[in-house]
Amino acid sequence: MTKTNPGNFFEDFHQDQEIIHATPRTVTHGDVATYLSLFGSRFPVHSSRVFAQDLGYDEMPIDDMLAFHLVFGKTVPDISLNAVANLGYADGRFGVSVQVGDTLTTVSRVIGLKENSNGQTGVVYVRSTGRNQRGEMVVEYARWVMVRKRDQTRPTPPTVVPNLPKVVAASELSVPAGITVAKYNTALAGSPHLWDDYQVGEKIDHVDGMTIEEAEHQMATRLYQNTAKVHFNLHQQSKDRFGKRLIYGGHVISLARALSFNGLANAFRVVAINGGSHANPTFAGCTIYAWSEVLEKMTLPNRSDIGALRLRTVAVKDMTCEAFPYKDAEGKYDPQVVLDFDYTVLVPRQIGKA
Amino acid sequence: MTKTNPGNFFEDFHQDQEIIHATPRTVTHGDVATYLSLFGSRFPVHSSRVFAQDLGYDEMPIDDMLAFHLVFGKTVPDISLNAVANLGYADGRFGVSVQVGDTLTTVSRVIGLKENSNGQTGVVYVRSTGRNQRGEMVVEYARWVMVRKRDQTRPTPPTVVPNLPKVVAASELSVPAGITVAKYNTALAGSPHLWDDYQVGEKIDHVDGMTIEEAEHQMATRLYQNTAKVHFNLHQQSKDRFGKRLIYGGHVISLARALSFNGLANAFRVVAINGGSHANPTFAGCTIYAWSEVLEKMTLPNRSDIGALRLRTVAVKDMTCEAFPYKDAEGKYDPQVVLDFDYTVLVPRQIGKA
Amino acid sequence: MTKTNPGNFFEDFHQDQEIIHATPRTVTHGDVATYLSLFGSRFPVHSSRVFAQDLGYDEMPIDDMLAFHLVFGKTVPDISLNAVANLGYADGRFGVSVQVGDTLTTVSRVIGLKENSNGQTGVVYVRSTGRNQRGEMVVEYARWVMVRKRDQTRPTPPTVVPNLPKVVAASELSVPAGITVAKYNTALAGSPHLWDDYQVGEKIDHVDGMTIEEAEHQMATRLYQNTAKVHFNLHQQSKDRFGKRLIYGGHVISLARALSFNGLANAFRVVAINGGSHANPTFAGCTIYAWSEVLEKMTLPNRSDIGALRLRTVAVKDMTCEAFPYKDAEGKYDPQVVLDFDYTVLVPRQIGKA
Repeated sequence: MTKTNPGNFFEDFHQDQEIIHATPRTVTHGDVATYLSLFGSRFPVHSSRVFAQDLGYDEMPIDDMLAFHLVFGKTVPDISLNAVANLGYADGRFGVSVQVGDTLTTVSRVIGLKENSNGQTGVVYVRSTGRNQRGEMVVEYARWVMVRKRDQTRPTPPTVVPNLPKVVAASELSVPAGITVAKYNTALAGSPHLWDDYQVGEKIDHVDGMTIEEAEHQMATRLYQNTAKVHFNLHQQSKDRFGKRLIYGGHVISLARALSFNGLANAFRVVAINGGSHANPTFAGCTIYAWSEVLEKMTLPNRSDIGALRLRTVAVKDMTCEAFPYKDAEGKYDPQVVLDFDYTVLVPRQIGKA
Repeated sequence: MTKTNPGNFFEDFHQDQEIIHATPRTVTHGDVATYLSLFGSRFPVHSSRVFAQDLGYDEMPIDDMLAFHLVFGKTVPDISLNAVANLGYADGRFGVSVQVGDTLTTVSRVIGLKENSNGQTGVVYVRSTGRNQRGEMVVEYARWVMVRKRDQTRPTPPTVVPNLPKVVAASELSVPAGITVAKYNTALAGSPHLWDDYQVGEKIDHVDGMTIEEAEHQMATRLYQNTAKVHFNLHQQSKDRFGKRLIYGGHVISLARALSFNGLANAFRVVAINGGSHANPTFAGCTIYAWSEVLEKMTLPNRSDIGALRLRTVAVKDMTCEAFPYKDAEGKYDPQVVLDFDYTVLVPRQIGKA
Repeated sequence: MTKTNPGNFFEDFHQDQEIIHATPRTVTHGDVATYLSLFGSRFPVHSSRVFAQDLGYDEMPIDDMLAFHLVFGKTVPDISLNAVANLGYADGRFGVSVQVGDTLTTVSRVIGLKENSNGQTGVVYVRSTGRNQRGEMVVEYARWVMVRKRDQTRPTPPTVVPNLPKVVAASELSVPAGITVAKYNTALAGSPHLWDDYQVGEKIDHVDGMTIEEAEHQMATRLYQNTAKVHFNLHQQSKDRFGKRLIYGGHVISLARALSFNGLANAFRVVAINGGSHANPTFAGCTIYAWSEVLEKMTLPNRSDIGALRLRTVAVKDMTCEAFPYKDAEGKYDPQVVLDFDYTVLVPRQIGKA
């Protein structure tokens, strides 16, 4: 029996299968600093203990997307090592905030299977749940990937396509316990614009651009212990159609979130990932710009001091965003668009301010 | 109203204006390690808790230049986003040492304004002060930058040019509380040469060279949450006269300080920045060398165990320093010189050693 | 007297000389995260506090090779700054585990000297010992390097060649105090294969490849405060025979160890370095693959729950390892082989599992 992990192929998955992923992970201030040095995020709640405590947190929470990547990274060796394509995300919810010292583990459940008509590949749907050392959910999400069959003669499993929501409802959004915006300081936060100031349909060009280096995306992806080969192996990738390493799609999500500070500085927490698509590949040397559209304004049950904004943030490579590049008339993504990310953030409301 | 920060233009500043900068920052061991991995400094007081405590510190202080960059970085979005040139520094003083766990904020005051005769730009002088969570000053300095006018028809403000000292006087230098050199171990510090051994006019070639990579200066600059576009955006910079990203001048300061260990290993603390000039631009791929000259030896009030050295450290790109490259007969910098830094350090004296 | 360190030349060493190396070092979570971001290791004992405590550790131990590099790095300015070649390692033993918060210092003793017949160089043998703040040994090893003579007229010292063991005996291996495998969770560890499952002579292709960037190896090497010029100075190296920077041999050791997780996931601790050779140079842009052979299975005195495996791990550049590339018929290394590392690891045994 080989002692190396060949990854799972389509026929290795079965409906309702539970997969315990390896390498639990204690989060440290080192992770936070490395992440900061790679993305440069300026949201103060992840940068200042004092600011976080004024907002009602016990301690600084780590960046929500860092928590997502740590939880996601563990699933790669089991779910997507033989993936042909990462097809989508849905129904992502952030639960208890992650703090330095927490230990994260991830478990996935197979929630759908659909073999493709060519008999060579199939789509695997999983729900992955990250928990802390107390068993509390920190983030969970559905994801579907196209995976190769190893043995094409194996029978086709019954097709199950899960019914996933287009948007996580306001009633499902988790406001961290103890949060209060009474002492929220917009000068230190970097912007006066609160929930009340945003309009549905409003588009924001985040202006700044950030060029990605090979060392940077490799360091980020290793920090999450994500083992996907295409990000790390130039020798193999040089024989591939692109001839170079592909950047982890999550890297672009983190960059877009960091760039979105310029225009969304008070969006202090990501609470939901409604959907996401990596529209085109990203490579080292690309400069990433981003723009956002406010898709929806949500009030929260029992909270008049905090509201939610559902956003579409679009990341674009090597093109500025004053024209908000997106899709053409046929609905096809502009070739410079690399990310179409639909998510929900929490923002203080005017009424919450003393 | 646009929700993105366009930065301040010359006419947005007024004399005595106070600017509270965004994104307070709690310093962690992660920041210290990332900084170390980028510069490789070997000064033991920032590397060993035991060494720091033997010297009388409660805990390891962070590298003085890391503290400076963290304080400085916050000022960029408000002061220098529309800067044409970073003209100079003066009267920089380091106060209370920064330790892991401290939260830093920066406030700037406009101390001078001078519109240029072309009516297109002006010089803004600010004094920026970094404080910890107890309100104690950790570093403050004057800086002046040339900033664009947005609207050239706006009236010219009264010219105020502040009177800044050429050198921070010995009486103004802050020796950290509780410091004692009785247990100072020169073997562990890496050199037997104490304050007494240095002569005014003495020049030291620091010998070693360090090549800068794009990923490295980007990571450092993001660690400080410094948002200056020229350091990060290849897409934009490729259309600029240099055709590439510029390296943050502070990156070269940190490299020069780290290289200066080889010849100045016992200069355990930077206490003042008297002046500084980024003589020529630095780009990725450049190898930085450095040399120093002892400009002044200062005794300190009420301290016979520690003295101060005023130094000029010159950083040079792609040229070794055995000939101490600096300026030509007309006073023009050698084109390889990238930094001319005038600062003051503390060094144990022989008399303090048991 | 010059104040910069010229390094020691062959004639500066004498038999039994003790050298106290500079820059003691307190290990932090920042170091651990930086190391992780550079190598992506997935061994859970260094990644999860909970996993480590279930295994009987008080706290997460740091990666054994990180401890080695921190101890080794301090020796470079004194031992190998003028080295022509790093000839070998032997008799490496890991003692007390290193935890975050420990402060490491290194002392070396000269254990052998042998001038070469050309009178220009000589071999210096040292035993270097890293200790924590309590004086406990954390790692010690013998190393020999070829060093230049400064003055070829200096007399030849008596030749002393130390008698070094080929393998660290099982009775000399240190199992960390308090270790128990009763709660060892192979699902979280990432593999079901325990000590019992490995056979002497078994070869394992670790499959994955990792490309090294200049920024990465520079950051790693600076993290260890290793000052060897060849790793950092493009300006100087561009005039050398390779025309580029050489990667620290220890970087390849760490990569090989991280890659070996895929096939050796339960090898939770390196306890000995029996020998090592950097067979060929490694440069940025190289993709490193690795394979291992089980050289020996050792039982441990008084432990039926843990066994040791003596391994040879071979790192290879730009070539996959399914054919286990190593040496040709004359015993000459394949030109793609960059590391031949003989070491011993601890692995839980079936009998220890409840």
